Amino acid sequence: MKGSLPKMKVIVDLCVVPMGVGVSVRKYVTECQKVLQEAGLHHQLHAYGTNIEGEWDDVFAAVKQCHERVHAMGAPRITTSIKVGTRTDREQSMQDKIDSVARK
Amino acid sequence: MKGSLPKMKVIVDLCVVPMGVGVSVRKYVTECQKVLQEAGLHHQLHAYGTNIEGEWDDVFAAVKQCHERVHAMGAPRITTSIKVGTRTDREQSMQDKIDSVARK
Amino acid sequence: MKGSLPKMKVIVDLCVVPMGVGVSVRKYVTECQKVLQEAGLHHQLHAYGTNIEGEWDDVFAAVKQCHERVHAMGAPRITTSIKVGTRTDREQSMQDKIDSVARK
Amino acid sequence: MKGSLPKMKVIVDLCVVPMGVGVSVRKYVTECQKVLQEAGLHHQLHAYGTNIEGEWDDVFAAVKQCHERVHAMGAPRITTSIKVGTRTDREQSMQDKIDSVARK
Repeated sequence: MKGSLPKMKVIVDLCVVPMGVGVSVRKYVTECQKVLQEAGLHHQLHAYGTNIEGEWDDVFAAVKQCHERVHAMGAPRITTSIKVGTRTDREQSMQDKIDSVARK
Repeated sequence: MKGSLPKMKVIVDLCVVPMGVGVSVRKYVTECQKVLQEAGLHHQLHAYGTNIEGEWDDVFAAVKQCHERVHAMGAPRITTSIKVGTRTDREQSMQDKIDSVARK
Repeated sequence: MKGSLPKMKVIVDLCVVPMGVGVSVRKYVTECQKVLQEAGLHHQLHAYGTNIEGEWDDVFAAVKQCHERVHAMGAPRITTSIKVGTRTDREQSMQDKIDSVARK
Repeated sequence: MKGSLPKMKVIVDLCVVPMGVGVSVRKYVTECQKVLQEAGLHHQLHAYGTNIEGEWDDVFAAVKQCHERVHAMGAPRITTSIKVGTRTDREQSMQDKIDSVARK
């Protein structure tokens, strides 16, 4: 497509919620961490999701694989929340975002 | 790819927020509606986002194109919220979800 | 409280997800609709949540009551996603937001 | 107790996005961190939001104050994303959630 950026860097916040598998979802979250590691994506777990940075296509391929794996583990239903940040004015890493506030 | 579902139907809720373009974001939201229409995806605008249903790859290709177009229109930064629902137990459309509650 | 706005109108998008109750969450969503109705809040269900408008305190009291009721119905765990919009430049209703895009 | 829990502990993920103030929102995020500190709430900044834990009313009073302060700083419009977790089966802190996955 003309006009599309060949590469688009993205910072994502991902929270995958398997439904119909009981109250503890730890093993599914752990599996998603493995997906991100295998994908070689820089990521950081926090108490309500995981920050990920990388190229758009790589990050969203991993998100899709999280759904596939969690279904394959037996979860019949998944609801996921994603925040997606892109910018064209400058490069910014996850650490930059934290540092810029912490410095103040 | 072994282990991946050949097709995965998804219901998505999408809210694209352009930053650094002033307080009114109407024209960017309108452009995203156009992207969804051009992609032939079933979608429904509401007061805080847009519901979309379709195959995973088609829906996320459209989401990526929303970011590309909104940047191309001059927005230097975008933060987007996405909810993603998949299920393997049964088919469910956006309208089914609304009907199942409304019937009660 | 000094410095606080006496009233702050808010448009909210609410998606309550009970966990540990099986795959169907319809009855819990229906109960939340009842909470909003009883609270007299203008609201509109869509396929991935409910738009609500009202004063900040009224809306968030209702959101809290949704959690209380869904727990009282037996759900041991709830994860909820909320989007919250406020603006000081002008009044805007949920319908205004939809109309401004649809008009284009 | 009529229906409502006297106390309800909550883990929240908060992401406040001021609109109409240009591309950099650092000073507004920093102000929200100050609100959380002044409120005495346990919180942890990450690259796409802030995790907060505390009693429901205390946490949401702080969220409201974030909106009030960010408007008072000049932002005419704010869109905020919140995830809210409550559970009645057991106590769980933000650190517990991270540890349970990291241990695996």
